[in-house]
Amino acid sequence: MIETIRRRTPKGRGVRIGIGDDAASVTNRRAASLITADLLIEGRHFDLRWTSLSDLGYKSLAVNLSDIAAMGGVADYVILSLGIPRRLDSKVIAVFYRGFEALARECSVALVGGDTNAAAKLIVSVCVIGHPSTKPVERRGAKPGDDIYVTGTLGDSALGLKLLRRQKRAGGTASAHARTLFMRHHRPTPRLATGALLAKNELATAMIDISDGLVQDLGHICRASGVGATIHADRLPLSPAYRALCGTDDIVSALSGGEDYELLFCAQRRNRARIEKLPARAGVTITRIGACTAGDPNVAILDASGKSLRIRVSGHDHFKS
Amino acid sequence: MIETIRRRTPKGRGVRIGIGDDAASVTNRRAASLITADLLIEGRHFDLRWTSLSDLGYKSLAVNLSDIAAMGGVADYVILSLGIPRRLDSKVIAVFYRGFEALARECSVALVGGDTNAAAKLIVSVCVIGHPSTKPVERRGAKPGDDIYVTGTLGDSALGLKLLRRQKRAGGTASAHARTLFMRHHRPTPRLATGALLAKNELATAMIDISDGLVQDLGHICRASGVGATIHADRLPLSPAYRALCGTDDIVSALSGGEDYELLFCAQRRNRARIEKLPARAGVTITRIGACTAGDPNVAILDASGKSLRIRVSGHDHFKS
Repeated sequence: MIETIRRRTPKGRGVRIGIGDDAASVTNRRAASLITADLLIEGRHFDLRWTSLSDLGYKSLAVNLSDIAAMGGVADYVILSLGIPRRLDSKVIAVFYRGFEALARECSVALVGGDTNAAAKLIVSVCVIGHPSTKPVERRGAKPGDDIYVTGTLGDSALGLKLLRRQKRAGGTASAHARTLFMRHHRPTPRLATGALLAKNELATAMIDISDGLVQDLGHICRASGVGATIHADRLPLSPAYRALCGTDDIVSALSGGEDYELLFCAQRRNRARIEKLPARAGVTITRIGACTAGDPNVAILDASGKSLRIRVSGHDHFKS
Repeated sequence: MIETIRRRTPKGRGVRIGIGDDAASVTNRRAASLITADLLIEGRHFDLRWTSLSDLGYKSLAVNLSDIAAMGGVADYVILSLGIPRRLDSKVIAVFYRGFEALARECSVALVGGDTNAAAKLIVSVCVIGHPSTKPVERRGAKPGDDIYVTGTLGDSALGLKLLRRQKRAGGTASAHARTLFMRHHRPTPRLATGALLAKNELATAMIDISDGLVQDLGHICRASGVGATIHADRLPLSPAYRALCGTDDIVSALSGGEDYELLFCAQRRNRARIEKLPARAGVTITRIGACTAGDPNVAILDASGKSLRIRVSGHDHFKS
C-alpha cells in the first residue's frame, strides 16, 4: 500500500527525499517553520456511516491546513499516518487517499511520509509543516477596542452534521440546501489565502481558526490576549442554506457548532477600510461581528437592541462522548 | 492536561512559538529538514500489561529518533499526539510524559505541539523534525563489495519481549540478564551520535535502523540499492544476556526479532580502518557482519563453514496480529 501511495504521489516542490526512506528530507522555504498536527479517530471525530472515505481524506488534511491558515502561514509538506481496520481493504484506503490528494494538489502541499498500521478503528494522524508568510499571527495580540471578524459563514458544518444524522435515522433525500451544508461539513475550505493576506499586511492582531465553535475559540483569543469580547448576534454571517433550514433566530449552531474552520481574527479599528477591501482578493466574505473589551476574558453576546443574551454555549469537547 | 504539559515543557532552543497556538513556529537549523513519524497503537505495538507508561513515553520518542539517526541527522523538534482511553487519568498520562521528556531532554529535542483526544485504546502519534548533518544517508547507495555493519547487539529486544510475556504468564522474578533484555526492549537507545558521525565522515553508503529485524531491514537496503547481501551467522553481535539466556546457536531473534533500533549500514571496504576507530567516539560497538553482492536483492546467511543456512525468517509485520 505504501508502495502504491509512493508511486501515485508526485515528488512535490522542495522534496529531496520523499516517501520510502527512514525520514523525508525537504527544503526549507524560510528561516522558520510552522508545524501543526491533528489526530482523528473513528467514532470520535468522524463516523463512516455518513462520512465517505474520500471526504474524510479531504477533511483530515483541511483541518491541519486551517491551523496553518490561522497563523497566516503557507503549507508546504504533510505527513500522513493511518491506523487501518481489517475491514477496510486497500481499495477503500485508495479512496481516502484520493480525497486527501485532491486538496494536497489544490494547496500545493507535498505528501512526504508517514506510517501505516493495523488498528481496530480507523485512525488518521496528520502533521503539516509550512512556513510563516512574514511574522506568524498568534492568539495573544488582541487589544481592547480591536474589532472582531470572521471569514465565510458560521454554523453550516454543525447544522450539516445534525441533518446528516437525522437523514441517517429517518431516510429520505436531501434538499439542495441540506446538500450544501453536508458539503460544508465534509469539505471545509482552509482559508489559507485570507490568512496569508492578513499576515502579510499585518492586519490581524490575533487569529485562530474556528474548530470548537465561535464562542469557545474566541474565548481562547480572549484568555491568550487578556481581553474580553462582545459579539452582536444579529451580525453573525449565516449562509442562505442555514437561514432556510434553521432560520435566523436559532443561532446556537453559529455560536457553538464547531468545525466551521473559518478564521476568527481581531484587528485595529483604524484598519477597517483596508479589511473591507480584502474579500475581493481573498475570495471569501469577511464580517465584523463585534469588538474586544477591557476586563475579564469573557465573551458577551448582545441582541439587536444591545441586550445581553444568555445563551448556554457548551462548545465542542472531544472528551465528552 | 495540555496546559500542564505546556507549563512543564521548557521552551527549547529555536522554539519561537511552542505549545498552545494553532501551530508551532520553530527556527530551522539548516536549509533542509528531516521529517519522520510513527503511529503506535495499544494492543498492536505495545501492551500495557508488561509495558509501563513511562517506558512507553520513552520508547515512542526513541523509535522516531532512531529514524533520524538512520539518515545521519540531528533531531530538533517533536510533535506528540495522544488518543487517551477514559480509564487512564491525567496522572497516568503524566507518567507517560515523564518517560518521553527524559529522552527529549537527553537528546535536546523540543516538544512543540500536538493534539490530545479521547480514544478507546491508547494511541501515540509522534512526528520528529530534524536536520541532516551534511547529506542524508539514504537506503539506496550500497554497492556490490561494500561491507555491512551493525551497531550494538541484535535480538535483545525480541528476546526481552518473549521473556516479558513468559513472566506475565508464569510469574516469578527476573534474573539480571532478563532485566537487561527488558530494558533493551523498553528503552532502546537511538544511535544519533553514530549516525551523525557516519554521515559527517561520509562513511556509510546506505543506512537504515533495524525496526523489523536484521534480515527484513537489510532486504530494504538491498531492494533500494539493487544489491544482494551475505551475512555471516557467527559474526552477529550477541549480548552477554542473549548468550546466557538463548545460547549462540539460536540466532532467530538476532536475525528477525525486530525492534533492535540499532543502525545497519554499508560502507566501502577501503574505509574499514576508519570505521574500526568509530566505536571509541560513538560509544557503541560496531560489528562487520557481511558484505553486499552483485545480483538479486536477497539476503543469504552463511554458517562458520560458509554453508548457506536455511532459516525461515518472518520479520515483523504489523498487519499480522
